[in-house]
Amino acid sequence: MTKSEILSLREKHLGKSLSISYNKPLKIVRGEGQYLFDEEGRAFLDCVNNVCHVGHCHPHVVEAAQNQIAQLNTNTRYLHDNIVNYARRLTDKFPGDLSVCMFVCTGSEANELALRMARTYTKRKGVIVLNAAYHGHTTALIDISPYKHEGPGGYPTPEYVHKVTISDGYRGPHKYDDPNAAHRYASEVKAAIKKAQMNEMPIGTFIAESLVSCGGQVEHAPGYLEKAYDYVREAGGVCIADEVQVGFGRVGSHFWGFETQGVIPDIVTVGKPIGNGHPLAAVITTPEIANAFANGMEYFNTFGGNPVSCAIGLAVLDVIEQEGLQARAHRVGSYLKERLSELKTKYSLIGDVRGRGLFLGVEFVRDQETLEPADTEASSIVEKMRNRGVLLSTDGPLHNVIKIKPPLQFSQENADTLVDNLDEVLALNATK
Amino acid sequence: MTKSEILSLREKHLGKSLSISYNKPLKIVRGEGQYLFDEEGRAFLDCVNNVCHVGHCHPHVVEAAQNQIAQLNTNTRYLHDNIVNYARRLTDKFPGDLSVCMFVCTGSEANELALRMARTYTKRKGVIVLNAAYHGHTTALIDISPYKHEGPGGYPTPEYVHKVTISDGYRGPHKYDDPNAAHRYASEVKAAIKKAQMNEMPIGTFIAESLVSCGGQVEHAPGYLEKAYDYVREAGGVCIADEVQVGFGRVGSHFWGFETQGVIPDIVTVGKPIGNGHPLAAVITTPEIANAFANGMEYFNTFGGNPVSCAIGLAVLDVIEQEGLQARAHRVGSYLKERLSELKTKYSLIGDVRGRGLFLGVEFVRDQETLEPADTEASSIVEKMRNRGVLLSTDGPLHNVIKIKPPLQFSQENADTLVDNLDEVLALNATK
Repeated sequence: MTKSEILSLREKHLGKSLSISYNKPLKIVRGEGQYLFDEEGRAFLDCVNNVCHVGHCHPHVVEAAQNQIAQLNTNTRYLHDNIVNYARRLTDKFPGDLSVCMFVCTGSEANELALRMARTYTKRKGVIVLNAAYHGHTTALIDISPYKHEGPGGYPTPEYVHKVTISDGYRGPHKYDDPNAAHRYASEVKAAIKKAQMNEMPIGTFIAESLVSCGGQVEHAPGYLEKAYDYVREAGGVCIADEVQVGFGRVGSHFWGFETQGVIPDIVTVGKPIGNGHPLAAVITTPEIANAFANGMEYFNTFGGNPVSCAIGLAVLDVIEQEGLQARAHRVGSYLKERLSELKTKYSLIGDVRGRGLFLGVEFVRDQETLEPADTEASSIVEKMRNRGVLLSTDGPLHNVIKIKPPLQFSQENADTLVDNLDEVLALNATK
Repeated sequence: MTKSEILSLREKHLGKSLSISYNKPLKIVRGEGQYLFDEEGRAFLDCVNNVCHVGHCHPHVVEAAQNQIAQLNTNTRYLHDNIVNYARRLTDKFPGDLSVCMFVCTGSEANELALRMARTYTKRKGVIVLNAAYHGHTTALIDISPYKHEGPGGYPTPEYVHKVTISDGYRGPHKYDDPNAAHRYASEVKAAIKKAQMNEMPIGTFIAESLVSCGGQVEHAPGYLEKAYDYVREAGGVCIADEVQVGFGRVGSHFWGFETQGVIPDIVTVGKPIGNGHPLAAVITTPEIANAFANGMEYFNTFGGNPVSCAIGLAVLDVIEQEGLQARAHRVGSYLKERLSELKTKYSLIGDVRGRGLFLGVEFVRDQETLEPADTEASSIVEKMRNRGVLLSTDGPLHNVIKIKPPLQFSQENADTLVDNLDEVLALNATK
């Protein structure tokens, strides 16, 4: 089918609330490693898809799926090796008492379940979330996602939801050079707890991504989550770490994003990269919280934890371990961040380069003092990079952050391709 | 792994809110057509899994999945043939203006999205649901699922949710022989609309399964949905048909359950059978509602509508059509219902045999007059049938209905196996 035929069928048969990447949409027909190929065989370097975590169509993952799909694909009310093997392998990756998991199909289902668990355990409805947080697309998750409900088609933040400032050392009120930044940001959590108590809807849950994705590829100020968790727990609440975007070794220095902050959450949600594109996600928690949740109301997820999904989940863990992808994310990501930081010294349009491992963000500004967001410029750069065969996209509440989160097979050479092209695009832009 | 090893790992690493089928759990390692096989190679006739709709591991579906998974599995922001081919094939199955679809991963995601669409379109929160309805496991869906929130670990029905009696001609207040039953049941919908208006939280949505599953395998009284829809639409609301359990030809006489009632819903949700076990689901609606939902807030589902899911969805439609499975459901289901009805004349424990196609229910009672539910008896029959190699399960608000909804490859011979074994189990039970 031609692109225009596809576009006209999309127009007719798909909801318009689903957007398409790039002004000149791509028809992608094949994926391999960190590359996507269009209908004419042109290769594109995928710098943005953190779902196909171990590389598009990784042969080990493909084989595991192909074998299991021909054997059995049924629900978890029968016994099967895969689900328990996988539950053991997955929970082994977690510290502390995080030893119980529940398998679901999407990050939204994981965050829904996590929220229900936290509420059942604490018997409290109040939730603290970060400004510009995104946790999923269900009714309850849009309530706790200012990124959605404060945007177009949105609504006022519900009374039970309390927003706190992202501990962003670049654009936030407390800067990278403030040694007390974490403390200052976390004091908002303390204040929110107090306010909720006065409103007689006490806080039961604090939920935050371990590194912030849609909110602008932001690393929390060092020590931020530790202080925030302390306040929440003192007040009888539980802490959910949303690892849907950042987990599974992407941050390089650690397997989980929350480990970079030295905390152990009460509940962790994982998704996107867990199945390399297969609809799989999970909630991991403590026996105490899981047992409180088992209050008589069954939780059954038709497809969650089926033998195919678990075979794929196991294969993804195999690849991460066998190919040393966490170490690679650390090595290549550090190199890439350094090269991007060099670009920053060259172009005043780059306000900030941040992140960790292969989870990086480049924030564009028109003015280094006022930090006026260069949103149209960032979009235009993304389009130009696409035309050069490099796939990126923008995010952040001001739409001026280019996010970089490629499949972990991304190489130093790929990093050079990305930065060299970005350099050229910025140079042309500067001389315009 | 032995069963006891699996059980002990489940105990340790899986949440206890997930239950296991049968007192003597089964370890199932392989599936083929309407059969499941345990670790010793023993075959079990699967009479209850409506997810593996065209048969466990159907070769055409397996092949479609295997091929696509090795080619590309990425999101819908790039153009791809599969999603539009599938959207066209799927929407072609629907009458009226039901021409727009949105792909998601689970029935819960589909009902969540449908509810959000209905609310965005009508700008009203009030919902009418059937007693004992089950629509999914998210926060908002448990609110509209009395089957969940009225059960153990539940809570009072939220103020915005209005329950109406299922038009059950056996146990409900208006019986099969009442020619005005549909009218009488539907008058509750009218009353709920009026009550909601007085409470200043008008009804925006009426949601009902086209045939009721968890609520006890109940067919609506003839004409019920038509009258109910009329009242809802007159009052400015929209009607959602939940086809997650019953769609795709299972009811035999029609492709969709709602067609048996002669109605055209405003929004339809489909799930379970759509992907023969693969996590796939969809919402189908009119351009008018889809456009109203596209109010600026994007709906993006990471895995929804990916090339692998759509390849599988297409293959499932191929098999239903090529193997004439709808006609088969009609033929075999009618035969099975007739044989079950004969059993009813033989055993007073059987109160009612109902349903359509291969979506049938057998309700067990201790007394044909008082209709005292024979719940423990139904459970015990299910266990005995399992020991004979026939897989069934119970459902319904009183746990006394045995549900029959096998893969559609189910044959007349399979129907005989099921009924002959049930006959023997009931005979032994009667002489005890």
